Amino acid sequence: MFESARLPQKMDKKTFKKLEPEIRESLLAPQLEIVENKKFSTVILVDGLDGAGKGEAVARLYGWMDARHLSCNAYGEPMEEARLRPPLWRYWRDLPARGETAIVFGSWYQKPLRDRVYNKLSDEEFSKELERIRNFEDMLANEDVLVLKFWFLLPKEDQERRLEKIKKKNAARHVLSDWAALKNHSSASEVGEKIILETSTGNAPWFVIPSQDAEYRDSALAQTLARSMKLKLADGEPRTVSAPPVIGGVKRKTAIDAIDLSAKLDRDDYEKKREKYQNTLSDISDTKAFSKRGMILVFQGNDAAGKGGSIRRVIRPLDPRIYKVHPISAPTDEENAHPYLWRFWRRVPRRGHIAIFDRSWYERVLVERVEGFASHEDWLRAYNEINDFENELADFGYIICKFWLAISEEEQLKRFKAREDTIYKQHKITDEDWRNRLKWDQYAIAAGDMVDRTSTHYAPWTLVSSENKRHARVEVLKTICKRLEEEL
Amino acid sequence: MFESARLPQKMDKKTFKKLEPEIRESLLAPQLEIVENKKFSTVILVDGLDGAGKGEAVARLYGWMDARHLSCNAYGEPMEEARLRPPLWRYWRDLPARGETAIVFGSWYQKPLRDRVYNKLSDEEFSKELERIRNFEDMLANEDVLVLKFWFLLPKEDQERRLEKIKKKNAARHVLSDWAALKNHSSASEVGEKIILETSTGNAPWFVIPSQDAEYRDSALAQTLARSMKLKLADGEPRTVSAPPVIGGVKRKTAIDAIDLSAKLDRDDYEKKREKYQNTLSDISDTKAFSKRGMILVFQGNDAAGKGGSIRRVIRPLDPRIYKVHPISAPTDEENAHPYLWRFWRRVPRRGHIAIFDRSWYERVLVERVEGFASHEDWLRAYNEINDFENELADFGYIICKFWLAISEEEQLKRFKAREDTIYKQHKITDEDWRNRLKWDQYAIAAGDMVDRTSTHYAPWTLVSSENKRHARVEVLKTICKRLEEEL
Repeated sequence: MFESARLPQKMDKKTFKKLEPEIRESLLAPQLEIVENKKFSTVILVDGLDGAGKGEAVARLYGWMDARHLSCNAYGEPMEEARLRPPLWRYWRDLPARGETAIVFGSWYQKPLRDRVYNKLSDEEFSKELERIRNFEDMLANEDVLVLKFWFLLPKEDQERRLEKIKKKNAARHVLSDWAALKNHSSASEVGEKIILETSTGNAPWFVIPSQDAEYRDSALAQTLARSMKLKLADGEPRTVSAPPVIGGVKRKTAIDAIDLSAKLDRDDYEKKREKYQNTLSDISDTKAFSKRGMILVFQGNDAAGKGGSIRRVIRPLDPRIYKVHPISAPTDEENAHPYLWRFWRRVPRRGHIAIFDRSWYERVLVERVEGFASHEDWLRAYNEINDFENELADFGYIICKFWLAISEEEQLKRFKAREDTIYKQHKITDEDWRNRLKWDQYAIAAGDMVDRTSTHYAPWTLVSSENKRHARVEVLKTICKRLEEEL
Repeated sequence: MFESARLPQKMDKKTFKKLEPEIRESLLAPQLEIVENKKFSTVILVDGLDGAGKGEAVARLYGWMDARHLSCNAYGEPMEEARLRPPLWRYWRDLPARGETAIVFGSWYQKPLRDRVYNKLSDEEFSKELERIRNFEDMLANEDVLVLKFWFLLPKEDQERRLEKIKKKNAARHVLSDWAALKNHSSASEVGEKIILETSTGNAPWFVIPSQDAEYRDSALAQTLARSMKLKLADGEPRTVSAPPVIGGVKRKTAIDAIDLSAKLDRDDYEKKREKYQNTLSDISDTKAFSKRGMILVFQGNDAAGKGGSIRRVIRPLDPRIYKVHPISAPTDEENAHPYLWRFWRRVPRRGHIAIFDRSWYERVLVERVEGFASHEDWLRAYNEINDFENELADFGYIICKFWLAISEEEQLKRFKAREDTIYKQHKITDEDWRNRLKWDQYAIAAGDMVDRTSTHYAPWTLVSSENKRHARVEVLKTICKRLEEEL
């Protein structure tokens, strides 16, 4: 999850300096309008692991906004007054009145987060806590509170470096008390992901802020906040859950942008590896262990990235009685008369079988989003619905692999032209393909959001460069074999 | 919970016969409109314990509706096709297309219900299952499925009698296979209540159908269904979660209607009992065990029912340092600028203390509902919000008692007049009291719904006849003492 926030996203100081007045204005204008019309209050949760610079970021926010209508509360261990009352009491006490904005450090997520990391809560108890929080936040949203939640994300190495630096300075002692958290970094990250996954709702969305670069981090925080306030002021407008595509003039990088397209494989190497993995696949799919599970494969990617070719290499070693390929195109009338996921539930394989989807339920957050076939609200809620769907499948035992096959814009052009020139390939290229190509950037953002929101531990995305088809095919086979070996 | 559905609600056969054409028409008209415009499909869940006559009721529904656009599926142990796929698969397979209506016996609630009753699921796992179901039903609702859930409720004795009869007839063998369920009646009822409490949402409400009398049961089912379809057809209109106030021409009885107002207590008896309970209260409130808990008392009731007098008898034996009485009237400006429950969180006592509310957060679903101060949507969601709020309080350790003090319409008139005639009581009677009195029936329905939806095991309602004030005061003291003794 949140692959894109782990990419190095930077903004140089000069750009930042030049943009600062604009950022300031974009925050102040909606803030003052809210102060004036008192339609709602704003609560900003600042969470994430230590050392990501939450304090610095909020200090800058204070400089940009009108501090008279801004308050900031940091909650650590509760004081006596609060200890004598239910845990939520102190947060209620400090809720801002309509027109005001409050920043919350150490929110209601901190206790469940820590208790889960230190195993004081079972997974079920933890889910129950998250459910209570969701109800609480829904209630706030229904009572005219704009709840925005920011998760500051820092890869492990950066966190270590940052904390080391703070330690040397011997400043900010309150950070050091959390030193222990580092030991549990991976466990804490996992719990954090679950928090974001399960409590990112239309009413109270999480925004993941990449925090390696201070200028980028603070611009992302400010511009996301500014946009959310503006959207809420415009009312009715459904709220979004991803950061703006451009942060302080810099195009936001998505997980897709980070795929290394230079990977290559020569023919000999390819033949050897392909054969090896196909043999493994053939063997594993024939085991008793596999017959008790089953597999679901999803292929998405740029047009002409070679989904069909990869699928053909996967099915070659398989017994035709146990797999089925489902090419997904426009829904039938009957399918259209049912809930969206109905047509995929129809294709759920029997235990021990394999269903291969050439395009899939992800079309809802790709083509349907970009082309406006699904309403804003519909594709927004689809992320959670898809995660729930795949969770049902994984719980039953299916092994799920999802592939995004990526090519560059130039490579796509080359392949489109080649298709037009080759008679037996002409059916593979349509006007629609050319039209979609014009929206390359929009599709890239949609694909990036998709990977950020739906790459789960039970159904991870694998991003594969398909610039070289041989490389892609072997990567796909290798990933499937690896997952099967892990799971069986 | 669902006190009202446990009351004997009857309809004689003659009334029923006369009403049947009307019921039929009220069902057919919206059904055919839905068939015509194909705006949504309808899924009707039929649940509850065995022997309540679910099959009979649905058979009648079939007679009334257009069976060509109605399907009915009963799910028991899954067949092989279904066993080889995730549990939800068979329900997805049978989802009706837009325009169609499907009745579901043995819904997705059956497995978690049984697994919880037979302790195969822990309480947390069970909650997690309910959460998954909630997400699933939300998704259906968002995808144009009208989800209506009916819980057929039968008190234990009636269930025993009904099953005995069926056993003798030796008919309906499938019912007998569930004979074992009876042994767990109380546990199953409790789990059922939790299901209804936690999964009754605006998107997929539960309606509890009193099933002692077949004619009343079937009219209630039909008229609730007819009204829900009509509301959904009218769109935008928020859906309600209580049955219509009049079922087949018969006024629906609420829990309030069942209070026996004839209870009396003579002065000597009163003095003796009052003193006894006040002594107990004084003793318990002084214990160390109590100082680790605390108590929250809520008083609601008809105007002039004597809330103040009862509260005075409760506080007399208490140390003034540990209690506070909060008379609740119109919110201040500052309170109005915050979420609704903020003003009650402000008054949450410290551990070991007692907060007594003369009127409370329940005003939202009483006066604010009846007078239209809260929107339909706001008071509807308040039931769950209030349950969550009280759950937080109970989890922290407070003992919660809630009292509804009831008097008859005539007794109220007498007391109003007496107040006007007594100089030092004149401040207690206002024009507003007289106005409220004109809406007696509406207030009774609101109070009934309130008790049905918010009487939980952690914060139960006690309904007290206050027609005789001495009786009410002793009942209140007795209930508090009993709860304290149970909890400490």
